Amino acid sequence: MARKNHNFHLAERPQGLIVPGRTFNFVETDAPTADDLKDGQVLVETIWLSLDQSMRCWLASYAKPTAIGEKMNGAAIARVLASKSSKAKGSDLVISISGWTELAIVNEVAPVPEGVFEPIDLPEGTITRDALGAAHIGQPKAGETVVVSAAASATGSVAGQIAKIRGARVVGIMGSDEKCEVLTKKLGFGVALNYKSANFDEELARATPDNINVYFDNMGGTILEKAIDRATLHPRFVLCGCISEYNKLDQPNLGGIRSMFDVIAKRIRMEGFILWDYTPEFPKAKQQLGQWIAKDKLKSLETVVKGEFP
Amino acid sequence: MARKNHNFHLAERPQGLIVPGRTFNFVETDAPTADDLKDGQVLVETIWLSLDQSMRCWLASYAKPTAIGEKMNGAAIARVLASKSSKAKGSDLVISISGWTELAIVNEVAPVPEGVFEPIDLPEGTITRDALGAAHIGQPKAGETVVVSAAASATGSVAGQIAKIRGARVVGIMGSDEKCEVLTKKLGFGVALNYKSANFDEELARATPDNINVYFDNMGGTILEKAIDRATLHPRFVLCGCISEYNKLDQPNLGGIRSMFDVIAKRIRMEGFILWDYTPEFPKAKQQLGQWIAKDKLKSLETVVKGEFP
Repeated sequence: MARKNHNFHLAERPQGLIVPGRTFNFVETDAPTADDLKDGQVLVETIWLSLDQSMRCWLASYAKPTAIGEKMNGAAIARVLASKSSKAKGSDLVISISGWTELAIVNEVAPVPEGVFEPIDLPEGTITRDALGAAHIGQPKAGETVVVSAAASATGSVAGQIAKIRGARVVGIMGSDEKCEVLTKKLGFGVALNYKSANFDEELARATPDNINVYFDNMGGTILEKAIDRATLHPRFVLCGCISEYNKLDQPNLGGIRSMFDVIAKRIRMEGFILWDYTPEFPKAKQQLGQWIAKDKLKSLETVVKGEFP
Repeated sequence: MARKNHNFHLAERPQGLIVPGRTFNFVETDAPTADDLKDGQVLVETIWLSLDQSMRCWLASYAKPTAIGEKMNGAAIARVLASKSSKAKGSDLVISISGWTELAIVNEVAPVPEGVFEPIDLPEGTITRDALGAAHIGQPKAGETVVVSAAASATGSVAGQIAKIRGARVVGIMGSDEKCEVLTKKLGFGVALNYKSANFDEELARATPDNINVYFDNMGGTILEKAIDRATLHPRFVLCGCISEYNKLDQPNLGGIRSMFDVIAKRIRMEGFILWDYTPEFPKAKQQLGQWIAKDKLKSLETVVKGEFP
């Protein structure tokens, strides 16, 4: 009997939270085989699948969402099963935008970088994001106070560590005491705050006695408002993510940022940052990050979840 | 009988709109005289008083508000009645931060610029604001679409005209059809839109077919949201004022900007702008503006209100 393939397709655009069994459909199809390959194509089997916060956006009706009825999009580290491409040969480990599937035929694969990034620390996306965001917009300097939200995330943890390497005082904001401990004990952040704490406002004020020079935002919403409130004059705000809002973006009464007047009063420069504007700089950024990791100046956080097909 | 002086003092911080007879107290005092002057001081009589949108902020508990019971702050063009200063002599017309009063003794006066700015087009504030804001943050270029809100205001009208001089396509947003007519007929704006129109959203979309490259914002609130919605990729937003919110800043449930996600998605660079950061550049800016006015490239709008003491 021919091998079957297992996939998750987007069934409907979620209103608010994702509902197991409703947002996605589990779909069984015939598996593609080496016989299906055209010139230049590669047959891959998913080993690791990247789960990114930004995936929530691909479920909404924003820039390039996954279509209803289509296989959910996503990056993977995959094993090559068969190849008609010069870019990969059988049994190579490659980075592939395969989507949520076991087996896929893809037109493009990229080699998994040697050593430090392999095998779990997935595509260049999150890992280089902050090197670039920090460098081009935030530009943290020695002696400055840099605050990072969602600071134990792939993005936030790198942003904070780069600021620290550059000599800034780094305050991380997270949603659990366990993650806060990771920030201070494993990554060496100066201070880590749990935004769910009843005294968060006072704790943030105490942690930023000279106010905030650079805010690297992955959360948006009320945490962004609180950062505006604690900003010094002429600070730089890198807007990289809006995690707190992703499950609400379809709501017409979404709460907004109420302190735009303070953006004027404090002459805050805020700028939206998306990684893909800086593709030409990836090789240099990866080299720098690799050196820092090799010297143990930069640590990589990984969360591995073992998934199962229904 | 000694001459009396008439003043308005701030009686209470307004909740929402200013209430005549309650927000301010009319206060009669003995008038200062030449005998009261110390070395370096000038006795002035108010001729014209500047009424600025930003005055609403001075009534709130923000950066440098007027204190309760204190004379309301404000800039004036005044006549010198007596002087012990080298900076002014009797009967000179000067710029003076006299506040809301008939007669005042002040420590600082500045000459009223010759010709084009005199007598009504008050202190350098509003008139140079946009030259600087536009140049440093907005940088409108030939062929770009520049949108200005509160575009018939002292600030907005200059911002829009400078963008036009630089070859941009300028769309002005105002709150009345009369003001829109001033923008297109007197100032030569390409398009002027009344944000109170029932079809404003469609009109803004039609007026910005290539989306917005530069948004010079004096209004904040929902108009800022609509500009974000119409922004192109990598636009510059100069946040100069927040008129729509000034009467609401004391409200805890102030509506906020709900489209920060789009600030990321479109990589909008937004920056708060306050004139006083650029004081060293005033002389050069005023010279440039004066030349444009002399060549009839830049027109000055004035609204004169004749006030009366109760």
